[in-house]
This record gives sequence, C-alpha cells and structure tokens, in this order.
Amino acid sequence: MTKTNYSIPQSVIWKEDHISLLDQQKIPQVTEYLELRTIEDVWEAIQSLKVRGAPAIGITASFGLALAALQDKSESIEQFLSNLSKTSDYLASSRPTAVNLVWALDRLTSCLANIKSINEAKTKIVHEAIQIQIEDEEVCRLIGEHALTVFNSGDRVMTICNAGSIATAKYGTALAPFYLAKERNIDISVYACETRPVLQGARLTTWELMQADVDVTLITDSMAAHTIKSKNITSIIVGADRIAANGDTANKIGTFNLALLAKTFNIPFYVAAPLSTFDTSIEDGNLIPIEERHSEEITTLNGIRIAPEGVKVFNPAFDVTPSELIAGIITEKGIISGDYKEEIKKLFHS
Amino acid sequence: MTKTNYSIPQSVIWKEDHISLLDQQKIPQVTEYLELRTIEDVWEAIQSLKVRGAPAIGITASFGLALAALQDKSESIEQFLSNLSKTSDYLASSRPTAVNLVWALDRLTSCLANIKSINEAKTKIVHEAIQIQIEDEEVCRLIGEHALTVFNSGDRVMTICNAGSIATAKYGTALAPFYLAKERNIDISVYACETRPVLQGARLTTWELMQADVDVTLITDSMAAHTIKSKNITSIIVGADRIAANGDTANKIGTFNLALLAKTFNIPFYVAAPLSTFDTSIEDGNLIPIEERHSEEITTLNGIRIAPEGVKVFNPAFDVTPSELIAGIITEKGIISGDYKEEIKKLFHS
Repeated sequence: MTKTNYSIPQSVIWKEDHISLLDQQKIPQVTEYLELRTIEDVWEAIQSLKVRGAPAIGITASFGLALAALQDKSESIEQFLSNLSKTSDYLASSRPTAVNLVWALDRLTSCLANIKSINEAKTKIVHEAIQIQIEDEEVCRLIGEHALTVFNSGDRVMTICNAGSIATAKYGTALAPFYLAKERNIDISVYACETRPVLQGARLTTWELMQADVDVTLITDSMAAHTIKSKNITSIIVGADRIAANGDTANKIGTFNLALLAKTFNIPFYVAAPLSTFDTSIEDGNLIPIEERHSEEITTLNGIRIAPEGVKVFNPAFDVTPSELIAGIITEKGIISGDYKEEIKKLFHS
Repeated sequence: MTKTNYSIPQSVIWKEDHISLLDQQKIPQVTEYLELRTIEDVWEAIQSLKVRGAPAIGITASFGLALAALQDKSESIEQFLSNLSKTSDYLASSRPTAVNLVWALDRLTSCLANIKSINEAKTKIVHEAIQIQIEDEEVCRLIGEHALTVFNSGDRVMTICNAGSIATAKYGTALAPFYLAKERNIDISVYACETRPVLQGARLTTWELMQADVDVTLITDSMAAHTIKSKNITSIIVGADRIAANGDTANKIGTFNLALLAKTFNIPFYVAAPLSTFDTSIEDGNLIPIEERHSEEITTLNGIRIAPEGVKVFNPAFDVTPSELIAGIITEKGIISGDYKEEIKKLFHS
C-alpha cells in the first residue's frame, strides 16, 4: 500500500469548541487525536504526558484556558477574571516544572488587562492563544530556514531525540530544515538515533518524518560511530533543553556523545533552538543541573523487565555539550558561532 | 533480603548422564538450568540460542557428542564410529556458522583415532570434552590474570555486551579480571552499557556480575560519554568477535564508539580475547564483513512494536575498531600492544 497524502503532523489543533490533541504516548502504534472538551481533559492530557515538548505543552494549556473562557457563564467581568485566574492556576499545576506552560498562561491573562466586556475578553483570549501558536510556528519555520543554509542536497544528517513538529506548533527545531527541504525538493536523508531510554527517536522522530515523506533511517544510539563512518554522515543537528550564557547546551542524554563523534569525524555539529531556550542567568554548562530519573526507565520496557531486579542504574536524563564542540547554534534570528558568549549577548540586545 | 552465597555463574555443567545448561534466553527474569538428556535436546538448545558465546556453544556440543557416545548401543567399533560421525554432523547443523562448534566436534572425533574398544572410546570422548572445558576456563583465567595487571583498586571500568563467564567455560574474557579482582578484594566498579539492540549488557552482564557480588552499574549506550566524564571512568575493556592480522577488532556494535570516546577522554581501551579469536588470514579490519541483521531486532522489543511499521532501519551487528585506538590486546599469553602486526605474528610463532 503506497501512501500518497503526506503532510507535516501537528500535535495541537484549535477547533473552536474543543482541542484536537495527538496522543503522543500511543505513537507509533496508533495515531489518535483526542478531543479535549473540558478543562479537566486538558489538565489530564498534560499531566499524563499525552502532549510533550515545551512549546506544544504551552500551546495546549493556552487553548485550554481559551476553552475555559468560552465556556464561562459569569455575568460580571470580575467573576469572569476570578474564574480564569483559578483555571490558570489549575492548568499550571498539571506540569509544575514546565516553564513554557506558566509563560503561556501568564501571557493570556496579561492580554486581558484593559478589557471592557466579557465577550471582548473571550475574543481576545482565543486570539492570543492562536497568536502563541502562530508565533511558535513562525519561530520554528525561521529556524528551519536558517538551518537549511548549512545543508546541501544529498546530505545525510544525524539527529537524536525528537526536536520535532509534534513537540512544537509545527516544523519543530532540529527537524524543521528537513520539512522545508522536502517542500523544496532538496534531497536530505535523516539518520535518527532511537534515543534510549525513552525512545523518542524510534517512536516519534521516525514517525513524524515518515508522515511527511522525509527519508529517515532508524539506528540504535550505539550505532552512531559506525554509521557516521560507513554512511558518510555529513552533519549532526539536535535540539536543546537549555543553553547557558556561553553556549554550553543541555540536551537529551546521548547528545554529548554525538558532539564528540562529530569532532572526531570532522563534521559539523549544530544545535537548533529558539531564543526561549537560552538561560543567560547560567554562566556555563557546569552549572546546569542534570536530572537523574527512575531506574525503571532503563530496566523495564513496556512493563517487561529487561535487567535484573535490584541492579544499580545511572540514569541521567540530559548531558551537557560544551560550546566548543558546536559548529553553530541555529535560532529564529540566525546562526551564531565562534565567540558564543559575545554572540549570545548580541542576540538578546539587538 | 541479603544474598550471601555469591559465585561466578557457569552456563554448561557436565553431569555424567546429562548436561545442565543455563537458559540464557530467560535471564534475567528467570534463572533456569535445563537438563539436556538427549542429542535432540542439545541440538535444540544450541539452535534456539539458549546457549550463546562461541566457547560455551563449543563446550555444549562437545558434551552433547559425549552424551551420544555414552548412550550408544553399538556392538562394533565401526558401527559406533559411524553413529558418532552422524551425530557430529547433526550437532554441527544446529548453528552452521559457529566455528567453535565444528572445531570442538572435530577435536572429539580426532581423539578416537587409535581406540581399541567402544568402552575406551566412550571414556576418551568424555575426557576430551571435559578437557575442552578445562582448557577454556584456563584460557579465560589467564586472560583475567593478565588484564588484572592493568587495573588498580578503585578503578571504574566500562564494558559493553557480554564477554562473560556464561559465554565461556568460566570467567569470560573481558569480565574475567573483575571476578579475579573480587576474589582478591581488589575494588573495581564496572559500568555496563546495556548494548542495544539485543541488550546483552542489561540482561546478561549485570546479572552474572551480580551473582558474584561484583559492583556493577547499568547505563544505556547513549550515556557512555557523560558517564566517562561524570564518573571518572578509568578504562574500557571489551571482548572481540574477530581480530585481524593488524589488530583491527570486530566486536558488538557500539564498541567502536567506546574506543573513540576512550581516545577523546585519554583513558586506555583494552580488548580481551583468546588466541582463537585472531584471524590472521584477514589483513585488516576493512576486510571483515559486517553482518546486517533483521530490522525487527530494533523495531520491536518483547514482541511489542517500538518504531513505526515500515520504517527503514540500519542494523549492523558489529563494528570494527582500528588497532591504533587499542591500548592493548589481552590474551592468555599476555598483553600485546604497539606494532600489532608484528606482535600478533610473534604470538603465533612462539
């Protein structure tokens, strides 16, 4: 069976009276869009990780608050705003560590500063939520545009984890150039590392690239060195969880390994990330705390034990890639490289 | 519950009227020793991968042939030898590509060259099979002794796959020094890479080291770089599938990655392997064929799909580590290093 209707998948779609949300936990076995109709639906979807990726979580929460506003039956502006404030706190509690979530909810609340009627408020909040999504899509598209300037037709590019369309409004960060290349008939092959322990590469990156007919090949993380050598990989591109003031980049565990391999094989290693990923309050990567997660993430898979009961496990969720290994950080404002400390300063003061 | 009776596990045990065989496919969920009483039991156990590791397979087949000899009811030497030859061919067909299997069976047949009676033949063949196991254990112990000279108390050593006791008669190759260190109260911590896709590190290496109370910590393959840096790993030791005349070493996929990391972090990378692993007919690593295996090995786990249906997969079973990345090859005759071509020649002519 040949599939013909290819498209770039989006994980959050506003439907006026509900949110259509891709259940990312069921990918790749089942492609299912949930209908979130109540604020409790939205809370549960975020809390149970059906939506993942900082921008996608922020967008989902925004539409959740918009949904609550539309459904509100208050007769006074005061009551309406009071209800909204409670709903916002409730939604923020679904994933307490998600910075984007709080940021998005605060932005929606702020936009109501001077409203004159409940109807105006409802229109404004929906408009603002849509605006957050549009802006994120634009940021991702711009990252893709800039990234595409460092790739050529025929390139074979490696990536890890899922810095993809379904983690954002659309396009993703590290995956954005591949979608743009596809639209323009630029021939790029992607090699996706499966990304143990949670397998975002195997489960999500391969799936979403296949939806858009981007050429993608899956490998285990252990195959990176051999694949770079035997398949003549031309570059590596990854997303970022946090970037320090000097360019040191925290990202999914395994990223540092790829950056070292890129240096060994003398191919460029790129980080693709929006300005919102930079944390200039952190001087360098040594100061980025590395979360250690449950051992069960490694010792069990789909509920089945794959390592002995009681085995000691080291399970860091992220690693830090020193900026000297990074050929360029690709943002919506362009690509920076070289003296990252200086370049990052400029990025935020121009 | 504190376990007190620690011991180095062995996978093949001769019991006079049967073979006791560890079912390695059930490790780590269940520790079960099968009783192989017929030649068909032995064939099935080898064919269905219940026993793995070239030496362990050879030993199992040897005891299988010994079992057949003991059960033979022939009344003439000619008939006995004819039956034995058929049984040998049958056992060899259980795993056609296993070189050790054929080697062991041929050795047993050869030892019967001058027998004068069926009883003498039965005694000789059992003796020779036991001898094959004893010799393999001695080879492994010697590798462990030599390897131990490059380790110090307090070392933290990384390994991949399972070059362990259960893959051999006892001790293993890369894991042998850890058992000897334990016996002598030399304090070495082991970091075991889980070894995707088949997870021999997670399933087998952690299990067998834990049986002997060796300190072992499990990581995913993607965590190697971060772990070397953050846990101050002092060296890496791995086994080998085949070593070329110039020292280039084919081993489980992921080994090459570790060797490159060792160079980057300036720690020694060792290969532990018996002389039988050298293939001096192969000039260098570029000439070693790399087996590519089924995509399902990567896309499913325990029968559950973890990557999209129809995804392209690259699944090389091995990679080749160039000898210049190897600090030493540890054999039963000592450690060689430097000019491997010359040293390997000497190894086989002294």
